Amino acid sequence: MARVFNFSAGPSVLPLSVLQKAAGELIEYGSAGMSVMEMSHRSKEYMTIITQAEALLRELMQVPDNYKVLFQQGGATLQFATIPMNLLTTFNRNADYIHTGIWSKKAIAECNRQGHARIAASSEAENFTRIPRQDELDLDPAAAYVHMTTNNTIFGTEFPYIPDVGDVPLVADMSSNIMSREMDVSKFGLIYAGAQKNLGPAGVTLVIIREDLLGRHAGLPLMLDYKVQAEKESMLNTPPTYGIYMLGLVLQWIKENGGIASIEKKNIHKAAKLYQAIDNNDFYCCPTEVESRSRMNVPFTLKNPDLDATFLAEAEQQGLMNLKGHRLSGGMRASIYNAMSEEGIDALIAFMEDFANRNG
Amino acid sequence: MARVFNFSAGPSVLPLSVLQKAAGELIEYGSAGMSVMEMSHRSKEYMTIITQAEALLRELMQVPDNYKVLFQQGGATLQFATIPMNLLTTFNRNADYIHTGIWSKKAIAECNRQGHARIAASSEAENFTRIPRQDELDLDPAAAYVHMTTNNTIFGTEFPYIPDVGDVPLVADMSSNIMSREMDVSKFGLIYAGAQKNLGPAGVTLVIIREDLLGRHAGLPLMLDYKVQAEKESMLNTPPTYGIYMLGLVLQWIKENGGIASIEKKNIHKAAKLYQAIDNNDFYCCPTEVESRSRMNVPFTLKNPDLDATFLAEAEQQGLMNLKGHRLSGGMRASIYNAMSEEGIDALIAFMEDFANRNG
Repeated sequence: MARVFNFSAGPSVLPLSVLQKAAGELIEYGSAGMSVMEMSHRSKEYMTIITQAEALLRELMQVPDNYKVLFQQGGATLQFATIPMNLLTTFNRNADYIHTGIWSKKAIAECNRQGHARIAASSEAENFTRIPRQDELDLDPAAAYVHMTTNNTIFGTEFPYIPDVGDVPLVADMSSNIMSREMDVSKFGLIYAGAQKNLGPAGVTLVIIREDLLGRHAGLPLMLDYKVQAEKESMLNTPPTYGIYMLGLVLQWIKENGGIASIEKKNIHKAAKLYQAIDNNDFYCCPTEVESRSRMNVPFTLKNPDLDATFLAEAEQQGLMNLKGHRLSGGMRASIYNAMSEEGIDALIAFMEDFANRNG
Repeated sequence: MARVFNFSAGPSVLPLSVLQKAAGELIEYGSAGMSVMEMSHRSKEYMTIITQAEALLRELMQVPDNYKVLFQQGGATLQFATIPMNLLTTFNRNADYIHTGIWSKKAIAECNRQGHARIAASSEAENFTRIPRQDELDLDPAAAYVHMTTNNTIFGTEFPYIPDVGDVPLVADMSSNIMSREMDVSKFGLIYAGAQKNLGPAGVTLVIIREDLLGRHAGLPLMLDYKVQAEKESMLNTPPTYGIYMLGLVLQWIKENGGIASIEKKNIHKAAKLYQAIDNNDFYCCPTEVESRSRMNVPFTLKNPDLDATFLAEAEQQGLMNLKGHRLSGGMRASIYNAMSEEGIDALIAFMEDFANRNG
């Protein structure tokens, strides 16, 4: 079978050229005579791979020198716990959370196991169909940090702005839109992201942390202590070596495609096309507020939900996969991360128009 | 360059046939039209991959029904902390540790951050060149658990027996010899292992836990709570999907090679050959006690350590890689995990004899 168009919310589509390169050197990497998976993480070859991946990440995201870049494990879900563990202090157990969906809900629950997560703003009453505006944020200047989720995969919303939180460190879960748009890293105290949307395969978790936030809390398990991980340069123990190698290949692909600014332009164009196709056709509806719409995850419903199953089955027959919406939001969802080609968007739009014509 | 013989202590050699299969289906898996790395972890295709991996693991290790099999992240180092977190109780903060090297030392340190690790036996005074015997174990019947490291990569020792610890749960770090020999799982309360020696690539951590040990301690971060992970069947969040797929391929290879009993026979044979070559030649010396010798990691020294660098350089020229010993033990170390072929052992022995003849 040929390659499909994979609209999965994550793990998700990877660039074909990256997969081809990985397949070509899976058994023997360069002149090493072995697979990257078989390399000691402390070998010269592997050290080059991980060092280059970090350098490329710093270059593409323009990470300032006073930030550490860490390759961790456990996904955003472990970070939900690790962040309060590291950033709450003995005397300040309070943090502000901007509540925009299921992922922030999970982050809030983990913080509440260790301290107190105060809700600085929430769009729960509107079923998370929009992002709270800056003037709606009720911020505590004494909070240990402010937590936000930059993009929400399930409800298809995305912050169109970086909140101004004064001198309190801003902590951002960027799992689902990292490197899809330019972000001023210096506005954040800590950025984290599971790799499995825009960065590579599942199993690698990126953490970018401002140095002054290291070591707020002593005596943590070593693996969960950002200060220790920073000192050991992500090599406290064996890192997920192959995942980091794949991440490096994806970063190289981003660079070859003009860097984040250029990728962002394509993402704006792809998302605009798809939203327009939805908005211009009464057969479909997008529930999210226009200003809050995600460029990564596009939820939409059919006017007649009885046709949902038929829509999905026919889409699959045309190689348009994983369009079913999350059970919490229902309907459809097209996840169109960096690696989703415009060709994929066009194929989806053509199918949607055809389906509407036949069933409308 | 052709494939080398890779004696790395970990990550380490994988079976060539496994790598070939992985390379062949990296871009498109079966009829899925996508890479395993791109699959939603909840897709039908991926659920089949992870379910089959667990079933195969249960079959090969004969895991009893009252044990859960978990695929986790973070390596043994995170388990060093997660084990006391889960198994110490509010009223019992004491655990026994059998101290046999650097890995147990790290495990002890993590336990001491949360409670008290009592040393039930130690071979530190003998520089960890042997494993304490059963009659040397000073066990506390009230301990929350007894911790052991079944194989020690750095000092090349391996438990030749499973300690009798009465009714106290036995917890074993099997990172470096899991599936290299038959083990009666029912003798253990908890078994854990980083995958990167005998199971697959780095980034997957196997945990096998007896059900009655789940839920001893409430309120843990969800990712670190074995009970939650067991209830969610390793799908609390996105697991390291590609690593688990690779682990499944390695398990399939073990099965095709006759299962663990057959692999164990080969390991006994391979190790015996190499130790014999060392013991029969005055040019080389193995520092470990004969009864405690590891079948996985074979440390040896040259009579004249001035020749170490020459030995390593010439070995590399012949495609015998990563033979340098750990900095704590010095000399050489040949790690000969399941996937190291007898051909590799023979090539190493031939080189060692030739080198001794030329330099002895």
